Amino acid sequence: MNNYYSQQNHGPFELIGIGDLQLEEGGTLPDCRLAVSLHGQLNAAKDNAILVPTWYSGTSKIMEQVYIGTGRALDPDKYFIICVNQIGGGLSTSPSNSNGPDFPQIRIGDDVRAQYRLLTEHFGLTSLALVVGGSMGAQQTYEWAVRYPEFVKRAAPMAGTARNTEHDFLFTETLIDAITTDPGFHKGLYHSPEQVAAGLRRHAQLWTVMGWSTEFFRTRRHQALGFASMAEFVDTFMTGYFASMDPNNLLCMAWKWQRGDVSRHTAGDLPAALGRIKAKTYVMPISHDMFFPVSDCQTEQLLISGSEFRPLQSVDGHLGLFGTDAQMVAQFDANIRELLATPVV
Amino acid sequence: MNNYYSQQNHGPFELIGIGDLQLEEGGTLPDCRLAVSLHGQLNAAKDNAILVPTWYSGTSKIMEQVYIGTGRALDPDKYFIICVNQIGGGLSTSPSNSNGPDFPQIRIGDDVRAQYRLLTEHFGLTSLALVVGGSMGAQQTYEWAVRYPEFVKRAAPMAGTARNTEHDFLFTETLIDAITTDPGFHKGLYHSPEQVAAGLRRHAQLWTVMGWSTEFFRTRRHQALGFASMAEFVDTFMTGYFASMDPNNLLCMAWKWQRGDVSRHTAGDLPAALGRIKAKTYVMPISHDMFFPVSDCQTEQLLISGSEFRPLQSVDGHLGLFGTDAQMVAQFDANIRELLATPVV
Repeated sequence: MNNYYSQQNHGPFELIGIGDLQLEEGGTLPDCRLAVSLHGQLNAAKDNAILVPTWYSGTSKIMEQVYIGTGRALDPDKYFIICVNQIGGGLSTSPSNSNGPDFPQIRIGDDVRAQYRLLTEHFGLTSLALVVGGSMGAQQTYEWAVRYPEFVKRAAPMAGTARNTEHDFLFTETLIDAITTDPGFHKGLYHSPEQVAAGLRRHAQLWTVMGWSTEFFRTRRHQALGFASMAEFVDTFMTGYFASMDPNNLLCMAWKWQRGDVSRHTAGDLPAALGRIKAKTYVMPISHDMFFPVSDCQTEQLLISGSEFRPLQSVDGHLGLFGTDAQMVAQFDANIRELLATPVV
Repeated sequence: MNNYYSQQNHGPFELIGIGDLQLEEGGTLPDCRLAVSLHGQLNAAKDNAILVPTWYSGTSKIMEQVYIGTGRALDPDKYFIICVNQIGGGLSTSPSNSNGPDFPQIRIGDDVRAQYRLLTEHFGLTSLALVVGGSMGAQQTYEWAVRYPEFVKRAAPMAGTARNTEHDFLFTETLIDAITTDPGFHKGLYHSPEQVAAGLRRHAQLWTVMGWSTEFFRTRRHQALGFASMAEFVDTFMTGYFASMDPNNLLCMAWKWQRGDVSRHTAGDLPAALGRIKAKTYVMPISHDMFFPVSDCQTEQLLISGSEFRPLQSVDGHLGLFGTDAQMVAQFDANIRELLATPVV
């Protein structure tokens, strides 16, 4: 077991079993458990539930810290907010708490079906007022809106796409290679992340190159965040962030991320898939995102009936998701507040 | 010897010895030879010489093929065009034709001093009508304009900076790591590039992610260039391009690229260094360049007296330098024609 994924670091969360989960790639994930953090109360009408899925490497904890709070758009005084950790992320059923390198391949659709079972069977929900998530959370948001169009009343995919691009697939491949080419990886049979430290460091370097933006570094944002140089930023912040994570978990998520694609429902026809969406949808890329760029996100937004294009401005790029730019977080709140105030059928 | 760097592949070029070269990092490069390709004739006034330095992995051959020709801006019927291959690039003195991993560290300033000796002592020049180069060729162009301000009458740095950024330094570090972490690299003591094929392939993947642009792939430019998928584009074009190159050569150039910095002349004061430039300068970033982005280039342009900002529009990004976008090549020609027509003192 990896102590990084503890209640102390990421809790409180509860583990809720949803039974065996049939997987899209074949086979079954037995006794699938989802790590869930709850905020607020379900109302009598059961129409105030919000689902918040998680991104690559992130857990429910950062969603709470950055996006949820009294007086915020995601306000637990008004809404019943359910943060569900993705399968493979370390808190829910994952390589690190089950069979390591023998863990099966998981699809975004597997997560969403597991979450649907959780919401309907465990919580008795019949609709979601909103699904909102960033990056792989956006992939799950799109999957929800396409797979369960009647269930999802509003959707806000942030910094992510409905169908992953070839460019993004290759970027993710470089992340995978950084880990698997470390001799300490031993085909997933390492004893601890420390054995894969060199690979995890290269993985952190790649995240630094693509995760922020050239403008972030040109305007010395890394110094504003407290790091004297790029080297220190990589060695301390970025490498430190990933160093304790389980490599097999990261690989499970990376494989899933690469293949996010709602057009699997429509034989590859993306307009047809996005045409299914009934949720009122705000598409929110981040202006300086280098791998889920504004142009790719807008291309999809134009295919979603009644949707609105609401880019968030921040030189922090993709990792502005971390909440490093207060002004971007404020834009998120303004958009989500407006979206939640929009009447839906 | 590596047969890739042959006259057949890259010639005709001539090797011109400039003697021993003192290096900025200390020590000497004995019997330094520069591989030079010449186009056109020097006029009687000796005022029609144009210097074209080379970029990372490129040789004089691609400069000829893409940028030089009768009726073009770089017209051998009007100008005496001297393409000089950078030290470490494989044609001039390089690891692959001398002492491999024991080759000394080379700076952009070493190249420019070697070129200065070539131009003054071998060709008897007293000025250059123009220095124009892309990427590391832009680094050399800036170095020329700052180091020899009286000598350089016009300068056109394309898709490169005068002082490398921290972001770009880290991108280059990921290229270096891709090669050196291949077990076949053997600290530079491999017998052929084939032994480092896996590392060179990862290096090609990283170039694919950062070298073009997300818009390039979104608009299916890779398909327009003849490749059905990203995977085929990586496996065939990008991997094929780098596969025969000498890893130690690439590492020599990468180290040099990381440290390009004209402010070494002025104790780190970039405005003071760029303030030295007397050349009429057109700064030409490429609109979709992901690691020498427009914003970084414009920041420098604003520090150059009398300079003009002339971005080239192309979704091909940095590797538009390869000449893949005819419309961008036409923009290059229009700018260089105008620059060459501008009177200088």
